[in-house]
Amino acid sequence: MSYSITRSAHVELRVTDLDRSREFYVQHLGLIEMHRERDRLYLGALQERDLYSLVLRKAESGGVGHMAMRLSNPDDLPRLADLYEANGLPIRWLEPDEDYAQGRAVRAQDPNGLPVEFFHRIEQREWKLQKFDEYRGAHIMNLDHLNSQVPEVQASYDWWMGKLGFSCSEFTVTDDPPDRLWAAWLHRKQNIHDLSLMTGIGPRLHHVGYWVADTSSVLRACDILAAVGLRDSIERGPGRHGLSNAFFVYLRDPDGNRVELYTGDYMIPDPDFKPIRWSINDPRRQTFWGHIAPRSWFDEAMRLESPLTGELIETRQPVLQDRPEFVI
Amino acid sequence: MSYSITRSAHVELRVTDLDRSREFYVQHLGLIEMHRERDRLYLGALQERDLYSLVLRKAESGGVGHMAMRLSNPDDLPRLADLYEANGLPIRWLEPDEDYAQGRAVRAQDPNGLPVEFFHRIEQREWKLQKFDEYRGAHIMNLDHLNSQVPEVQASYDWWMGKLGFSCSEFTVTDDPPDRLWAAWLHRKQNIHDLSLMTGIGPRLHHVGYWVADTSSVLRACDILAAVGLRDSIERGPGRHGLSNAFFVYLRDPDGNRVELYTGDYMIPDPDFKPIRWSINDPRRQTFWGHIAPRSWFDEAMRLESPLTGELIETRQPVLQDRPEFVI
Amino acid sequence: MSYSITRSAHVELRVTDLDRSREFYVQHLGLIEMHRERDRLYLGALQERDLYSLVLRKAESGGVGHMAMRLSNPDDLPRLADLYEANGLPIRWLEPDEDYAQGRAVRAQDPNGLPVEFFHRIEQREWKLQKFDEYRGAHIMNLDHLNSQVPEVQASYDWWMGKLGFSCSEFTVTDDPPDRLWAAWLHRKQNIHDLSLMTGIGPRLHHVGYWVADTSSVLRACDILAAVGLRDSIERGPGRHGLSNAFFVYLRDPDGNRVELYTGDYMIPDPDFKPIRWSINDPRRQTFWGHIAPRSWFDEAMRLESPLTGELIETRQPVLQDRPEFVI
Amino acid sequence: MSYSITRSAHVELRVTDLDRSREFYVQHLGLIEMHRERDRLYLGALQERDLYSLVLRKAESGGVGHMAMRLSNPDDLPRLADLYEANGLPIRWLEPDEDYAQGRAVRAQDPNGLPVEFFHRIEQREWKLQKFDEYRGAHIMNLDHLNSQVPEVQASYDWWMGKLGFSCSEFTVTDDPPDRLWAAWLHRKQNIHDLSLMTGIGPRLHHVGYWVADTSSVLRACDILAAVGLRDSIERGPGRHGLSNAFFVYLRDPDGNRVELYTGDYMIPDPDFKPIRWSINDPRRQTFWGHIAPRSWFDEAMRLESPLTGELIETRQPVLQDRPEFVI
Repeated sequence: MSYSITRSAHVELRVTDLDRSREFYVQHLGLIEMHRERDRLYLGALQERDLYSLVLRKAESGGVGHMAMRLSNPDDLPRLADLYEANGLPIRWLEPDEDYAQGRAVRAQDPNGLPVEFFHRIEQREWKLQKFDEYRGAHIMNLDHLNSQVPEVQASYDWWMGKLGFSCSEFTVTDDPPDRLWAAWLHRKQNIHDLSLMTGIGPRLHHVGYWVADTSSVLRACDILAAVGLRDSIERGPGRHGLSNAFFVYLRDPDGNRVELYTGDYMIPDPDFKPIRWSINDPRRQTFWGHIAPRSWFDEAMRLESPLTGELIETRQPVLQDRPEFVI
Repeated sequence: MSYSITRSAHVELRVTDLDRSREFYVQHLGLIEMHRERDRLYLGALQERDLYSLVLRKAESGGVGHMAMRLSNPDDLPRLADLYEANGLPIRWLEPDEDYAQGRAVRAQDPNGLPVEFFHRIEQREWKLQKFDEYRGAHIMNLDHLNSQVPEVQASYDWWMGKLGFSCSEFTVTDDPPDRLWAAWLHRKQNIHDLSLMTGIGPRLHHVGYWVADTSSVLRACDILAAVGLRDSIERGPGRHGLSNAFFVYLRDPDGNRVELYTGDYMIPDPDFKPIRWSINDPRRQTFWGHIAPRSWFDEAMRLESPLTGELIETRQPVLQDRPEFVI
Repeated sequence: MSYSITRSAHVELRVTDLDRSREFYVQHLGLIEMHRERDRLYLGALQERDLYSLVLRKAESGGVGHMAMRLSNPDDLPRLADLYEANGLPIRWLEPDEDYAQGRAVRAQDPNGLPVEFFHRIEQREWKLQKFDEYRGAHIMNLDHLNSQVPEVQASYDWWMGKLGFSCSEFTVTDDPPDRLWAAWLHRKQNIHDLSLMTGIGPRLHHVGYWVADTSSVLRACDILAAVGLRDSIERGPGRHGLSNAFFVYLRDPDGNRVELYTGDYMIPDPDFKPIRWSINDPRRQTFWGHIAPRSWFDEAMRLESPLTGELIETRQPVLQDRPEFVI
Repeated sequence: MSYSITRSAHVELRVTDLDRSREFYVQHLGLIEMHRERDRLYLGALQERDLYSLVLRKAESGGVGHMAMRLSNPDDLPRLADLYEANGLPIRWLEPDEDYAQGRAVRAQDPNGLPVEFFHRIEQREWKLQKFDEYRGAHIMNLDHLNSQVPEVQASYDWWMGKLGFSCSEFTVTDDPPDRLWAAWLHRKQNIHDLSLMTGIGPRLHHVGYWVADTSSVLRACDILAAVGLRDSIERGPGRHGLSNAFFVYLRDPDGNRVELYTGDYMIPDPDFKPIRWSINDPRRQTFWGHIAPRSWFDEAMRLESPLTGELIETRQPVLQDRPEFVI
């Protein structure tokens, strides 16, 4: 039993001021505006063919409207819906075009309440990979991953790995109690992650990861944000992760939504790739160079809307510690 | 019916002087020596876990001993052997350790006579991804692809796509006669190619493609080779391909074997990715910036050994033109 | 006796279509428009404080209106004029603001007829070094040098070195006859050149050299030009010069005027730096990696206007060969 | 009255274990060993022609033996000695070869007691600029500057600017009391600094600045040090300075001596360059992206040996605050 999930595909972020957010994502970071509605902006990246990967939606506060993964086989949509329902998990069907330019879709919550949308069809566009004259800002290539905080990582891990056929590239365990699963990097496409699960107050989305082509793009994003007076939007990094080997920076948009710019990870063509194990208290895990992440990076994340009610989902405290011991 | 081929995995190159070739690949380009026998050297790259991806074998002339792809499911080995045999194509079984540190394997020839080995098990090693102190030369990350010349691209295309389940990322057609398949970039792993097929005298291996992490690595390889007096080993580039978007340089080793250093391509997570079509005479195809490839790049390639006899396989003239019209 | 010449400062290029040239220099290469007149555009680079370094002037054909160097001491203007006149060389004084936003100036021709303007005062502006949000195109930092072709390099060399106090960083000699000065790289600021002299039909300006901060900027310029259909404007490179160690690309603007993007040279803080000697036929000299420059690079250069008449200066054949033997 | 000081040229660091320090500077950072004595190692960088720019000397503790600047005119040696003496400042003459491979020299202390050696002649060697096969580690190009802490910046500023003919590129003033000179970046060669003066306990050497060619070299240094278990040697950064625009990282060697790897500054060809003014409490000054330097960066620096006695010079408390208000 397997499902044709191919990748994380798009995220809808709640923003309180569309113009200000447009400035952040389009003018400074260089995402491309593909479509505009009264209360929504649809943005895409250079290497994408889907019409959009980021939706900015006018709302009362920051947070996440929904986040979506693509299926290559449309017949897997009802099969997935059945699977969630058979396990007593909530789902909601979306009609074609209920999300802009998109076919039928299902939104469903995993055992931690983490909501993900699945869809097959979305309007395609020409990519901009060789429109080098249109490269701006951080030269963002594509949406790479969704990183979440959930109270019980093991429960979501079992669901996504055991039921949905994800693979694990790297994972983190606690020291005390020993060897409890603290975080896991799961993927369907052949790199480190489409979805990561970290222990924390949740369900929340910790960050949206966008892939850039080189370290210069990460540095240029910092230079640009500082130049326009937004140095406070640089929350953590630039630096190199031990886990994933990625060179990264974490940014906070004007509503506090967190975006990672990310490069230098690796491909995993072999399904029998042996996952890499890290201890939560290994300082190289989070930053290979030893820099300690700020408290805000652990404390703050994005609330998620319920697929059923549209209300922000209530969060729960994690069952394990929510940060390494050296983070104070 | 499908087979668990995951990627191109290694190549055995014939070299006339092991020490001289070791200098080229290890000292200048930075591959890592993993094992040495009297007449063979086994080299690996930084991001690989297989014990080796390049074998240098002492021989009377340059060329290719064999080239190999990995299967993740060992049961697919006999299934593949049956498929080749059922289609009247030659195969030979290899016993475990007949190739160093490798399990049972099959070598087989496709309809153009192109020989490829399939194996499942090879000794694993720790990768060097985060051993940054051991990075040398071009900082080569992993074997990426095998690029071949064959007399009839369509026949091999039908075999690898139709029978072995490869996908096509980009392809090239002729203008006259119109729309005949001139070249195709085929992949199992989720980037542009594991195997490409180009029209030419063949079957021959045109080049081995190694992936590097950034454009600087390509430039540094040129600087190093020129510094040690080997500027003649730089055959073509550096430049950007239109097809694949890769930033590349083609090098000739001391026996004329051709290696590409390659970066800046893209991932293909969706199996329904619409392949990109190019005309053979579009100058941006070969070099986006308009540079014209030298004649040698079309004329010269590596002869291949027969899996059955070990003799160099006889080559045939191509049925279509073997180069764009603007290459003279 | 010495003069306070500090650097090459600006160039006025003749262009036949201001809008088309603006597209090339501003939109594609990223120079910044500082001022516009009916028949002139004034452009600057990111790290400059002078109001402009490039003037585009509407004219009947490509070529150079004038090229200018800065003096830090205004009293040296009349001293320089006297020197030229005392040596029977033509000069013309310019009134303040005869060149836009500039003080008094002198235009004078050296023994080969090469015309250079000297000025002290030009309007200053804020630089854009840390306006990272305004970086566009090739991220051009500053005008670096003027490279000329003259019939008798030795005569100009004696003038600029012996009379005007320039230093030589690197030079090239012929093999046959042996050791005749074929080219020289002369500087006042502490890097390789402000003015180079190469043997050729002249006096002509061979190219204007702009400095960029890294190799990526050179590659990005090529990508952008190719993306907008101007790949024919890439004349030579990218590559690395042996002489100067610079990573370069030579571009031709829509009127054939030649611009070099240039990075990776070195500083010369010591006035007793021993100049580096090259043979004209050393292939590493022109391109360290062995690539041979196209004929056009030797044959074609920009005609210069006479400071006295404004007419294009008649050119003469060089007294030595005008290219290496391996360029055919 | 002026002196032909051309640049900061070399530094002698005190180290407690030559082998361990050799590993840090040669094996990890990639400096080149040029000469070895029983208790001293002489190291050079790729773009240098002086035989060495760093001396490691076996001693009881970290710190600085001496630091030296070059004069292009040997006649300025006695003139400089006279100047110091006429102002009641201590000097000591060194005989030829008292420093290895060096001519006669003078060591002298400025009004803050800051000791600097002046010399004219040192043995020259071939540079390694185009020996790309010998590039290792951080690809360090040349010694760029010496950054000091002194109790009264104004006194040293007056000496180096007023008496020795240095220029100022950028400077920092206090807010309270207003406009007191807190730090100054002084140069003879045409970039930002040869010598900087910062308010602090002193005289001490705060760091030795080495120039690298690109941001990748800075990142690679971090990767290498972390890979060999020395992540604690990364004290601050990588990041971008507002002041100087440099991309930097500060490293601590095994004895706590501080080295900066530094790139992305700018040239100053005009002697009338208007220095850039910063307020001490402008957070962009120290790190353009807003990162706050650690306390250690302000508290700790290298003690200096007296030119007269060889003992470590007593330090004094600064007359102004020694750090921005936001550093806690």
